[in-house]
Amino acid sequence: MRIALDAMGSDACPGPDVAGAVLAAREYGDTIVLIGDRDRVQAELARHDTRGLNLEIVHAPEAITMSDSPAIAGKSKRQSSMHTGMNLVKTGDADAFVTAGNTGAALVIATVHTLHRIEHVKRPALSSIINFGYDTVIMLDIGANADSRPEFLEQFAIMGALYAKHALGQENPRVALLSNGEEAGKGSELVRDAAARLSKLPLNFIGNVEPKEVMRGAADVVVTDGFTGNIFIKTAEATLSMMFRLLRDEIKSNVLTMTGGVLAKPAFRRAFHRVDPAEIGGAPLLGVDGVVIVGHGSSDARAVKNAIRQARMAVSGNVIQAIRDGLIQTANPV
Amino acid sequence: MRIALDAMGSDACPGPDVAGAVLAAREYGDTIVLIGDRDRVQAELARHDTRGLNLEIVHAPEAITMSDSPAIAGKSKRQSSMHTGMNLVKTGDADAFVTAGNTGAALVIATVHTLHRIEHVKRPALSSIINFGYDTVIMLDIGANADSRPEFLEQFAIMGALYAKHALGQENPRVALLSNGEEAGKGSELVRDAAARLSKLPLNFIGNVEPKEVMRGAADVVVTDGFTGNIFIKTAEATLSMMFRLLRDEIKSNVLTMTGGVLAKPAFRRAFHRVDPAEIGGAPLLGVDGVVIVGHGSSDARAVKNAIRQARMAVSGNVIQAIRDGLIQTANPV
Repeated sequence: MRIALDAMGSDACPGPDVAGAVLAAREYGDTIVLIGDRDRVQAELARHDTRGLNLEIVHAPEAITMSDSPAIAGKSKRQSSMHTGMNLVKTGDADAFVTAGNTGAALVIATVHTLHRIEHVKRPALSSIINFGYDTVIMLDIGANADSRPEFLEQFAIMGALYAKHALGQENPRVALLSNGEEAGKGSELVRDAAARLSKLPLNFIGNVEPKEVMRGAADVVVTDGFTGNIFIKTAEATLSMMFRLLRDEIKSNVLTMTGGVLAKPAFRRAFHRVDPAEIGGAPLLGVDGVVIVGHGSSDARAVKNAIRQARMAVSGNVIQAIRDGLIQTANPV
Repeated sequence: MRIALDAMGSDACPGPDVAGAVLAAREYGDTIVLIGDRDRVQAELARHDTRGLNLEIVHAPEAITMSDSPAIAGKSKRQSSMHTGMNLVKTGDADAFVTAGNTGAALVIATVHTLHRIEHVKRPALSSIINFGYDTVIMLDIGANADSRPEFLEQFAIMGALYAKHALGQENPRVALLSNGEEAGKGSELVRDAAARLSKLPLNFIGNVEPKEVMRGAADVVVTDGFTGNIFIKTAEATLSMMFRLLRDEIKSNVLTMTGGVLAKPAFRRAFHRVDPAEIGGAPLLGVDGVVIVGHGSSDARAVKNAIRQARMAVSGNVIQAIRDGLIQTANPV
C-alpha cells in the first residue's frame, strides 16, 4: 500500500508528521510518500533511523497554513502539499492521503480542485471517529456543512454506515440521529424529516440518540448536521480539558491530595488514554472520490501514525468503491 | 418574600423538595409556600424541625410526572401543583414559583395555561445557569424551541442580558452567540442572521463563541437555539459523567492508584463541587410573565434550596419588569 502523507500538515510540521511516517512505515511496512518541501523533509528524516523503511519524498513548494482561508488556499496555492497529495490519489500513485492540516482547506481542495465528489454525493461530510472509553463511534457531519437538509443527512447515514462496515469492521452498524430527545417525534424539523428518510433505508436505523447515549456507545454511526456535530465535538473536548484543569488545580492545592494525585497518576493517564483523540489519529472526509484522512493540527507522531492506520483500514476495506455502489443503489432504487 | 415551591417536583418528591424548602426558609427567612398533596407534604414536614420557619401548605390534588406529555399534562391536570403554584404567582399570592419537575410541562403550563407571555415575547426560552469552575454563565434557549428564527434569538439575547444584569448582578453582561467558529461570518445561516441583529442592539455583544470559550467564561450570556443549546448542555453533562466513570474505573484497578484516589478524594470532591449543577439549583423560564425557576429532576435538598435562591435573586432584581420594559423599547425603538 502507498499512503501519501502531508509532511506540512501539523501545527509543528514537519517534525511530528515525518516522525509519524517513520513509525507507520516501520509498523505497517507500507510505503509512505512524504509530501512537502524536499529539503525540510529530508533534514527531518535524517534525525531518524530509516533503514529498510519504504519512505519516499514528493516535493511540494507550497504549504497551507492553519490561518489560510480554505477557499483562497484552494485556489491560489495549487502547488501545496495538499493539492499534490490528493492528486497522487487521483492519478492512482497513492492509495490514500493523510493530513493533519487545515481541515477546511482539505475539504475545498478535495471537493473542488482535485478528487471531486463521488457520483450522486450531494455534500461531502467531515467525520470524527471518537472513542469514549468503550466503543468506537463515527459521527458525521462535524463541520463541512453548517446548514444541512434532510437529504444530506440521509446520505451521511449511508456513507457513515458503509464506512463503519468496510473500514471499521462493524458488521451491522447501528445508525442513529443525534437529537435533543430519544423519542421519535423529538428533534428539530431537520431531525424529524431525516428520521423519516432514514427509516426507509436498508440500514440498521435505531432512531434518535441523546449525547449521553452516544457516549455510552449506543450507536456505531451518529448522523447530524455540521453545525450540531461541530458543537458536540467541541463541547466534549472543552469539557474534558476544563475538568482536567479543575482537577489538577484542586489536587495541587494541598500536600495530601497532591500525594494522592502522584499515586493515582497512572490511572489518570490510562483514563485520558482511553479518550485521547491521538489514539484514533484522524477521520475520513466522506463523499470525495478517494481516501482522505484528516487529523488534528495538534497531532504528535503517534497521532500521525494512527491517522495513517485509519487510512490503511479504509483502503483495505475498499470503502470508496462500497460508497460508490451504495449511493448508486439509493439513487436508483430497484 | 413569598416563594411557591412545587412539593411534587423532583424525581424523589416530596422528600427533597420539602427538605429544600426547610433549608431555604431557615437560611433566607422567606415564606415558602409548599404546593402538593397536603397529607404527604405534612408527613414530610413532620420529619424536620420547622419551629420559627415561615412554611405554608397549599393543597393541590394532582401532580405532574416526568413521563407526562407536556401538552396533555397542561390540559388535563388543571389541579396540579404546577398549575396551582403558577396561579399563585399570577394572582400575586406568591412572588415566584420554583419546581424541579417536568420542564416541558412547566413551559406549557406557564405559557399557555397560567402566566402567559410577557407582552412582545415571541417565544419563551428555557435557560441554564452554568458554572464551569470560574464564572457563572446564562445560556438560552436550551430546549424550549427546537427550531428557532433570528428574531427569537434576538429576544433571547435581550432577555438573557436583562436577567444577567438584574438577577445575576453582572453590570454590563457580555452577550455572545454559540457558534462553530469565532470569526464573524462563521456559523449557520441562523447564527449569521442573528449576529446581524444582535450587533444592532444596545447590548454588549461580543460576537461568536465556541464551546471552549463558553467554558473559559468568555461571555456572561450565551445565546443559541433550543436544539443546539440542549445538545451543548447534555454533551457537557455526559462528558463529565463519562470522565468520572472512566477515572473511577482506572483508579480502582490497582492498590496503588486506589490509595492515591483515597488521598486525592477531597480534591475530586471540590472539583466536582465547582461544576455541580446542584450548586446553581435551577434557571429561569424566560419570557413568561412571572418568575419561574426550573431545576433538575434529580435535585436533592441542597439543589432545591439553591433553586429557591435563584428565585429570590430574580424577584429582588425585579427582573420581570426589566424584561417588560426592555422588550417594549426594542419593539418600539425611538
